[in-house]
Amino acid sequence: MKIKIEEVKKGDINSIVKLQMRLADYHKEIDPRYYRSGKESEKQRRERLKGYFSKKRKNTKILVAKVNGKITGFLKGAIHKLHLYCREERMGEISQLYIDEKFRRKRIGKLLFEELLKWFKKRKIKFIEVQVDSKNKIAIVAYKKYGFFEFQKRMKLDL
Amino acid sequence: MKIKIEEVKKGDINSIVKLQMRLADYHKEIDPRYYRSGKESEKQRRERLKGYFSKKRKNTKILVAKVNGKITGFLKGAIHKLHLYCREERMGEISQLYIDEKFRRKRIGKLLFEELLKWFKKRKIKFIEVQVDSKNKIAIVAYKKYGFFEFQKRMKLDL
Repeated sequence: MKIKIEEVKKGDINSIVKLQMRLADYHKEIDPRYYRSGKESEKQRRERLKGYFSKKRKNTKILVAKVNGKITGFLKGAIHKLHLYCREERMGEISQLYIDEKFRRKRIGKLLFEELLKWFKKRKIKFIEVQVDSKNKIAIVAYKKYGFFEFQKRMKLDL
Repeated sequence: MKIKIEEVKKGDINSIVKLQMRLADYHKEIDPRYYRSGKESEKQRRERLKGYFSKKRKNTKILVAKVNGKITGFLKGAIHKLHLYCREERMGEISQLYIDEKFRRKRIGKLLFEELLKWFKKRKIKFIEVQVDSKNKIAIVAYKKYGFFEFQKRMKLDL
C-alpha cells in the first residue's frame, strides 16, 4: 500500500468535508449535548475550506493522505499566539485529525503528523498542543503514542 | 468580615495587576518551562486592563472582592464564540480567578463566582468553561466544588 502525504488541493474540498463531518458525528456520539452533527455544520465547513485557498495561509496547514489517489485521512495544523502568561509567544496546534476507519492502524496518522512536524520545526515552533474530549480514548491513546502528555484540563459547568 | 463584590474600577488597576502577577508566579512554580513570571508580563497586563476601560466591554466582566475597601481577590469572565463543532454558539469562560492567600477559605471565590453567574445567565449563556493546569490542584478542587467537571484535556508535545 502506497501512502502519499501532500498539501490539500482545491479539488480535495469535498473529500475533506466528508471526513470532517464524520469527525463531527463521532464527537456528537461522545457528547450529544455539546457537539453537533456533521450535517449541521457542513455548509460552514465547505466555506471555511474555500477560504483556506483564497488567503495567504501562512499560519494554517492542511495535509491529506492519499492511497491510490483516494483521500483516506487529513490533518489540520495551525500556529497560534499564546497567552500573556506563557513564556513562548507562539505554539503549534493540531486542530483536526481524522483517518477513514477502514484505513486505520496503517500508520497514516503518524505519517501525516510527521509531515506537519517538519512544518512546525521550520517555523521554529517549540511545542505543539492539542485539545481532546476526555471521553475520546482513540485520540488520547494516539497522541500519547506520538509523545503528547496531558498538561491542562478544560472543565465545564452546565447552567 | 464584610465582603463587597463589585465591578472593577479604573482606580483598581494597580491592585489587580499585583494579583495577576501573583497568579502568574503561582503558575510559573507549577511549570517554569511553560509559564513566565508575573514581572515579565506586568506592562502588558496593565495596558490590557486600561484597554478594558476604554472599550465597550460587553463580552468581558472583571469583578473584585473588597474587604474594608481593600481588594482581596478578582475574577475575570468572558463570553466567547464556540467552535463550529459545538451545538451552542457562545459560552461563558472563566479566564482568571485569584484570591489573596490571607483571605482564602472565606467563600470570597464563591461570592465572586455567583455574581459572574448572574451576568452569564442574563446573557443567556448555557454553560461555562474554564481551563486549568492539570497540576493546579487548588483550582481543580475549587471548580469541582462549584459544580464543574473535566470534559476535555489539552495535551502537549515539546519539540
